[in-house]
Amino acid sequence: MGNDSLVLLARLLGLVIAVVVVYWFLLLKSTFAPRKGFTYTTIHALLMVIGFILVSGEAILIHRWLPGSKKTKKAVHLLLQGVALLSALIGMWTKFHYESGIFSNFYSLHSWMGLLSVSLFAAQWVTGFLSFWHRGQVRETRTTLLPWHVFLGLYIYGLAIATAETGILVKLTHLQTKRNLPRRCAEAVVLNGVGLGLVLLCALVIASAVLPKSGNEKIVYSSQDRPNVWLLDFSFFFFSF
Amino acid sequence: MGNDSLVLLARLLGLVIAVVVVYWFLLLKSTFAPRKGFTYTTIHALLMVIGFILVSGEAILIHRWLPGSKKTKKAVHLLLQGVALLSALIGMWTKFHYESGIFSNFYSLHSWMGLLSVSLFAAQWVTGFLSFWHRGQVRETRTTLLPWHVFLGLYIYGLAIATAETGILVKLTHLQTKRNLPRRCAEAVVLNGVGLGLVLLCALVIASAVLPKSGNEKIVYSSQDRPNVWLLDFSFFFFSF
Repeated sequence: MGNDSLVLLARLLGLVIAVVVVYWFLLLKSTFAPRKGFTYTTIHALLMVIGFILVSGEAILIHRWLPGSKKTKKAVHLLLQGVALLSALIGMWTKFHYESGIFSNFYSLHSWMGLLSVSLFAAQWVTGFLSFWHRGQVRETRTTLLPWHVFLGLYIYGLAIATAETGILVKLTHLQTKRNLPRRCAEAVVLNGVGLGLVLLCALVIASAVLPKSGNEKIVYSSQDRPNVWLLDFSFFFFSF
Repeated sequence: MGNDSLVLLARLLGLVIAVVVVYWFLLLKSTFAPRKGFTYTTIHALLMVIGFILVSGEAILIHRWLPGSKKTKKAVHLLLQGVALLSALIGMWTKFHYESGIFSNFYSLHSWMGLLSVSLFAAQWVTGFLSFWHRGQVRETRTTLLPWHVFLGLYIYGLAIATAETGILVKLTHLQTKRNLPRRCAEAVVLNGVGLGLVLLCALVIASAVLPKSGNEKIVYSSQDRPNVWLLDFSFFFFSF
């Protein structure tokens, strides 16, 4: 499969997930604290899945399809990641208004994974801004930082999705044990569907980012015996070098 | 940080996680169905964390540190991944003996993610065996398959770890809601610690595998304006090409 089809598939799947999450938000009320109406926690899932994960995935894919100059692509990438960071911060903040206060968030794996991914994301955004956009650094420093930027960015993306999976599981377990939601019901199907959709999206986005473009597999043989092959194509990240 | 230090750190962290999981298995009885003694489900966590995830991580790192011929490295990689696959299959099988039978496993996100990662792992092992070990295919086919093998392998590794996180969370939520385990207790700390340890291990193993070795950043400039850079070093996977 060509790289272009992967990008297209990833963006389509992202759209489907966004629609399903909004549908879940609007129609399946039991998940979203029905007795209290619209609350801070109500929008946590929306901000985290759509604002953080989906927007961040779009930002990763920008370099693969957006036409225009290098500068435009980098500006859009930075801007979208900024929107994702802001959503993540507001999404975390909504949880600080919950019944038991801020510190109730520090006893679960979901919270720790979330705190880790948002902190890393913030650090990554600032470092990316300084070393790529600000252009204050010499080319050599940026060349050394690049594989770390790419690796860390994709790692954080995966970690955010893993955190979402734990969040979905916590929510469903809570509904099943505290509110007697049956194991087989529309809401469980929708929630598990979003979970599996995110797992697939993660694969598509990372594959689009790292696998070589079709017809672009540049292979350099350094010797007959042990060819030296660079198979992952990161040239698209070097627009400004 | 050099690549060698990353490999060392990853292997040390894997060892620490294994020790903590065994300690948890032997001393913190509440997690492991104390009333029934040693059961099928008792060993699910051991098989999945140590037998599947940790052994599979070791297999990924083999190419980065094991001395010896290419053939030896590939044989050890294949063998270790075989052990990991076997552990995963037995680990899944233990759940089929649980109270509610096989089909109770198909209603949770944890199960679906687990089924997906083990199925992909099995397919990956067979494809890897056929295309790399068996040597029946021509060099060109293997060159085309390689980036997919590497990408899919690392993706499955990450997915297995995400699945483990959901498993830990399900277990802790179950203990807290059904058996009134307090939110702050030794067992919660140990379980969440294993969860965060696995998140860190995932980063270290993937970074060791894909980041360039120190002093090995081969950069090819194809033009002054837009250099063509292959930053991720997969040459180590080409031992037999």
